Amino acid sequence: MGATDQTTTTPAEARGALLSRVEDRLSGLLTAEKSRWSAVDPRAAVPVEAVDALVSAGGKRLRPAFCLNGFLAAGGDPAREQVAVDAAAALEILHAYALLHDDVLDDSPLRRDEPTAHERHAAEHRAAGWAGEPRRYGEGVASLAGDLAHVYAHRLVGALSPAAREVWHDVCTEVVIGQYLDIRVAAERVADPELSRWTAICKSARYTIHRPLALGAAIAGRLDLAAPFEQYGAALGEAFQLRDDLIDAFGDSSVSGKPTGLDFAQQRMTLLVALAVQRDDRVSRLLADQNGDGAELGRLITDMGVRGEVERRIDHLVEQARSAIAEAPLSPGWRDELARVAVEVAYRQK
Amino acid sequence: MGATDQTTTTPAEARGALLSRVEDRLSGLLTAEKSRWSAVDPRAAVPVEAVDALVSAGGKRLRPAFCLNGFLAAGGDPAREQVAVDAAAALEILHAYALLHDDVLDDSPLRRDEPTAHERHAAEHRAAGWAGEPRRYGEGVASLAGDLAHVYAHRLVGALSPAAREVWHDVCTEVVIGQYLDIRVAAERVADPELSRWTAICKSARYTIHRPLALGAAIAGRLDLAAPFEQYGAALGEAFQLRDDLIDAFGDSSVSGKPTGLDFAQQRMTLLVALAVQRDDRVSRLLADQNGDGAELGRLITDMGVRGEVERRIDHLVEQARSAIAEAPLSPGWRDELARVAVEVAYRQK
Repeated sequence: MGATDQTTTTPAEARGALLSRVEDRLSGLLTAEKSRWSAVDPRAAVPVEAVDALVSAGGKRLRPAFCLNGFLAAGGDPAREQVAVDAAAALEILHAYALLHDDVLDDSPLRRDEPTAHERHAAEHRAAGWAGEPRRYGEGVASLAGDLAHVYAHRLVGALSPAAREVWHDVCTEVVIGQYLDIRVAAERVADPELSRWTAICKSARYTIHRPLALGAAIAGRLDLAAPFEQYGAALGEAFQLRDDLIDAFGDSSVSGKPTGLDFAQQRMTLLVALAVQRDDRVSRLLADQNGDGAELGRLITDMGVRGEVERRIDHLVEQARSAIAEAPLSPGWRDELARVAVEVAYRQK
Repeated sequence: MGATDQTTTTPAEARGALLSRVEDRLSGLLTAEKSRWSAVDPRAAVPVEAVDALVSAGGKRLRPAFCLNGFLAAGGDPAREQVAVDAAAALEILHAYALLHDDVLDDSPLRRDEPTAHERHAAEHRAAGWAGEPRRYGEGVASLAGDLAHVYAHRLVGALSPAAREVWHDVCTEVVIGQYLDIRVAAERVADPELSRWTAICKSARYTIHRPLALGAAIAGRLDLAAPFEQYGAALGEAFQLRDDLIDAFGDSSVSGKPTGLDFAQQRMTLLVALAVQRDDRVSRLLADQNGDGAELGRLITDMGVRGEVERRIDHLVEQARSAIAEAPLSPGWRDELARVAVEVAYRQK
């Protein structure tokens, strides 16, 4: 990309070129690690293969894209492109770690259209008649594969500046705390919309949009963009999470590639449910019901017309995100591109 | 320490002074994180508290000590002391992550004289009558606390040089692969002494001794010490692991602060068991027995006199470790100190 003439390249093309370098970086790292550990013993490569299976299965690559959006919109120096590509790759493999561990926490059977790592390895253990408990083994493999992805993520960010490193550590810490709040609130059945909002901010808004954008801008040395990117990221991040909740509640599993209806079944205090709690006391009562299976909760929320209200809130948040960057000094074409991206993320189907 | 006159300070005093700075660094970081997250919600601080509980419960601080041994024996510049202290703190908190996750993998009830994190939090869930499965919640908290410790470890090594960073990433990767091989070999009941040796090298020798020493030397800019420190670390690391196996097999739980007899009960292919396999076919058969409870295995290994043989091998390894550094250009007093440390580690009771 160093020789690319910015006047003839659209923002989407510039990002696309860097995103394909991100894919090369990821597959290069994982291929090298697979051969390194296979040489010791084929068994030693299993955790690497579990990471690779998830990374290769696709995914939206949202976090790398937002990191590169941040870098390019900030007019990042081509000499720093490799650092931005590595950081974008790090965010994607960090996401693989988060998913591997989350799927164990939630006992989720399906991810990216495939059985989850812990399910697959528990099944392998069962089929082979190995010693010990299949569940502990399967969850162990997923946990270790997640740990390995976590190490690889940190390996990829060795060249960050102190300011960019701070953003990186924030995102790493927040996703863990957000995940804990999520399982804690679900266990306690806390009906506290403010806490749910905060959990969603940690787990989704900052993790998926705000911090990746800020990381890209920090790599470009543009700390002045921290504030507008935070506003854009916070608004679009909430929209992203609300869409996630809608997809889980009302989406089509064959389109999204993951099971739907899980949030209601687990009586989770999602942003969607939090909005419903504020409107009708019956929602709180159903959430607190230890014997509820979530079906009644789903029906009530549907009947309340919360879906339409959430759609209107998403419209509003997309508008907020666009205004946040209306005056920000961005590279040519990037204001429109970030507005377009906001629409794409907020109105996605999967 | 910058003003310390090396001629009037013994190696043990110099290390002790830096080790107390490591404690301050760890407690400073964890205290700051507890207040930061408590301010959001008291629940948000729970994963930090779980990390703190383990770090504060003691432990031998072997890895920080070896990192500082490496730095000081290499004559590290006082101006780089803070980097060495941070790296030593990083190794200790990396160890907290490894223990939190290992205890889930092994379903271990006790650590550092206290119930393990997953046991404690499963019990809290049960007592409070929260929704969902206590085991999944308890293991989830331990898993997330481990993830958080892992993030903190990486946060502490931001100032490493590229050469030192490479050593750091090696130790992080090896401990995961070693841990996977451990659970895989236990599941398959593979009686392959070479694979067990390799697992022990990854999980113990390199992790506890060789890589921490090499990290300290790399921070001191002394890459010439990589080879002698590798030989010293490999020999002492194997002695360390053999002692670990002996403590598990024949030790006193009230002295070691962790349950004993677990390796036999889980029919694990430890180095001790691997040695026994090479001497008597009955050991392989007992290991392969899916219905065995390990008691017979323990009796057979005891009767075979493997314990005495392992003690002799430890003597030999300590001698090897001493020879490895006999000609290495170390700071005054450090050859003797590293020899003394080898004896301390190889003949410890817990």
